Amino acid sequence: RVDGTRLWDSLMEMAAIGATPAGGCNRQALTDEDKQGRDLFLRWCRDIGCEVRIDRMGNIFARRAGTDGAMPPVITGSHLDTQPTGGKFDGVYGVLAGLEVLRTLEDKGIKTTAPLEVVVWTNEEGARFSPAMIGSGVWAGEFSLEYGHSRADKGGATIGGELERIGYLGDEPAEPKPITAAFEAHIEQGPILEKQDQLIGVVTGVQGIRWYDVTFRGTPCHAGPTPMADRRDPVQALAWLCERLYSEVKAYSDDARMTCGDLRAEPGSRNTVPEKVVLALDLRHPQPEGLEHLHRTLYRLAEQVEEATGASIDVREEWHSPPVVFDESCIEAVNSAVERLGYSHRKMVSGAGHDSVYVSRVAPVSMIFVPCAGGLSHNEAESAEPDHLEAGCNVLLHAMLSRAGV
Amino acid sequence: RVDGTRLWDSLMEMAAIGATPAGGCNRQALTDEDKQGRDLFLRWCRDIGCEVRIDRMGNIFARRAGTDGAMPPVITGSHLDTQPTGGKFDGVYGVLAGLEVLRTLEDKGIKTTAPLEVVVWTNEEGARFSPAMIGSGVWAGEFSLEYGHSRADKGGATIGGELERIGYLGDEPAEPKPITAAFEAHIEQGPILEKQDQLIGVVTGVQGIRWYDVTFRGTPCHAGPTPMADRRDPVQALAWLCERLYSEVKAYSDDARMTCGDLRAEPGSRNTVPEKVVLALDLRHPQPEGLEHLHRTLYRLAEQVEEATGASIDVREEWHSPPVVFDESCIEAVNSAVERLGYSHRKMVSGAGHDSVYVSRVAPVSMIFVPCAGGLSHNEAESAEPDHLEAGCNVLLHAMLSRAGV
Ligand SMILES: NC(=O)NCCC(=O)O
Ligand SMILES: NC(=O)NCCC(=O)O
Repeated sequence: RVDGTRLWDSLMEMAAIGATPAGGCNRQALTDEDKQGRDLFLRWCRDIGCEVRIDRMGNIFARRAGTDGAMPPVITGSHLDTQPTGGKFDGVYGVLAGLEVLRTLEDKGIKTTAPLEVVVWTNEEGARFSPAMIGSGVWAGEFSLEYGHSRADKGGATIGGELERIGYLGDEPAEPKPITAAFEAHIEQGPILEKQDQLIGVVTGVQGIRWYDVTFRGTPCHAGPTPMADRRDPVQALAWLCERLYSEVKAYSDDARMTCGDLRAEPGSRNTVPEKVVLALDLRHPQPEGLEHLHRTLYRLAEQVEEATGASIDVREEWHSPPVVFDESCIEAVNSAVERLGYSHRKMVSGAGHDSVYVSRVAPVSMIFVPCAGGLSHNEAESAEPDHLEAGCNVLLHAMLSRAGV
Repeated sequence: RVDGTRLWDSLMEMAAIGATPAGGCNRQALTDEDKQGRDLFLRWCRDIGCEVRIDRMGNIFARRAGTDGAMPPVITGSHLDTQPTGGKFDGVYGVLAGLEVLRTLEDKGIKTTAPLEVVVWTNEEGARFSPAMIGSGVWAGEFSLEYGHSRADKGGATIGGELERIGYLGDEPAEPKPITAAFEAHIEQGPILEKQDQLIGVVTGVQGIRWYDVTFRGTPCHAGPTPMADRRDPVQALAWLCERLYSEVKAYSDDARMTCGDLRAEPGSRNTVPEKVVLALDLRHPQPEGLEHLHRTLYRLAEQVEEATGASIDVREEWHSPPVVFDESCIEAVNSAVERLGYSHRKMVSGAGHDSVYVSRVAPVSMIFVPCAGGLSHNEAESAEPDHLEAGCNVLLHAMLSRAGV
């Protein structure tokens, strides 16, 4: 069994970096705060004698040697970056649960057959740099290194430049080596476990995600003298499209999701009809056909915008992460661990994207969820119970040991 | 008659300051570019021997002495600040037409009985600092000097601080002295004169304007796992309100106007439902009852937002500029000048706010409009014909002389 108090204390120590007045964290990818978080993690890893490697995407791999030098590692991990108004557990829990597994084995003097590795993936959130999960995505071969390095934030700073600036542009190639199995512990970020009073989610896959930059274009003109009938107003077009898309998405299925996370008007002057409005749109569905349906609904409505409102529209797909089904044997490893430990549990599909999505392209993977209060995440009030976090970490320990061998 | 070529050349010289690649101007209030524009204007005024005063709001008064020292001045003027993507004529024309009147009198050696003054009012556009027409508003007693100095831009810089920084925080109190009459020449910024093939608009008043900051508040949460039914999504609320308000405003009357010039989502991350969206809203109508109706429509819909969408709403009125009717005798002075000069003309109400709105609280005022291409303004492509600008300036000359006496 792991040390739940030590795990909690480490979570709180990490949460102090980028702590916000409202009790959350702002430790966005590759900022000074992210660097501090990484530095702290490295110190902890070296304290227990891990060997550390950093790759060209800034992904960190901390290895505890196994007894069989030839056996590929069992890996675990997640991310240390947060949303701009993020919580203390999203991602961080998966990294520090992995560290706690290594610390526990070190305490007990247990040697595994396969080496174990804890990984910190770069820019999982997709908040500062789009898309999400880009560190694991480049590593797994979904994106090129050039694409990864060139992604820019709203101020124009790039991943490549920021990795160099904070000293985390490593030497290792960002590409996978053979892996025995991979596990990731995470808070659920949704309400299901809490509502059903279950302790552990045995995660069988991840729903599909598509991201779009939707640009509405109009003609800037004066707010006063210009007759409404003469206008090409991008905000009218935005309202027209969103009103219809929200209602079609909600009517389609309870599983469908639509989020308009960001909006920007240009030039952004109150008495000028904007020249353009850019909407950052996120659509999700657990089934490929469902996601395709939402995608087609967006394009169908987009085709009607100009006739309905006069303003034009351009829909650019920014990212597509299709639904993923995890590896049967890894799901079974988690399930057996949960049953051995006697925790209440259910199988479930993740609503959030995770680094495990891309890791699953090159290795057998599954995930372990624990409840979070009110299902709330991407919110400074995100909260989880120490007991639940400890239970999830015990599951991780047993699942990893079952694949690594002792 | 004025020198149309000289007027045009001065307009083009001023337009070079803050010129944009798309052929417009970005010379926002109290920026370095605004300072350069003011400096150029001052040089031109001193070249013809004007005495210059600057008040505590940075309003500039350039005076050409009259023969009767006791007679209050006849004033004219407008503003040199522009929208972020503004044109070459909005405001600038009114200032440089005033200057051209003085230059013409100087050339001809004509002495007026009353002194003449050309005024540059600070921050007329309301684009960098809200509300619009604040320089003339403080001067006329609509706003206190403290209010004026404390208004801040999106980056937090204040009018008081920026006046000091660019060296235009003058010594004169920002308050009116007696004025014989005031006139303001301006491009129409709307399509009426061009469509009806008229050269001059004799402006009888200005329609009413109300500005609002509409804040939609939700609960930030994760774009994936959070069921749509559990969300409080401020973008859903924005779309719901705008869709209905646009259609009610358009259905109410052809004279009604609604503009959503700026939108801001916080925290502005694609995979997080925003905590809030702030909309900068502008409603207008020429009649007080019409404007009141639009105002009540906004509040009625706002009351329904929470029930309809779950998100809450806060409507804060930022500014109210009621419809204004100009002075009969000043309107008549413009009308007589136009008829004497033989220009085609019509009476009209201004759709845009102007410094004359506030000047009219303390002095008899009217305005002179000339056409602009396609009625387009607050757009870098804003354009006006040299002949039309010259004609408007001739009207200004004759109207001013008629009230100042020769
Ligand atoms: N786990 C998590 O919050 N990931 C961010 C990627 C996404 O699902 O939008
Ligand atoms: N003339 C002009 O564009 N004024 C700006 C104030 C307004 O009407 O919004």
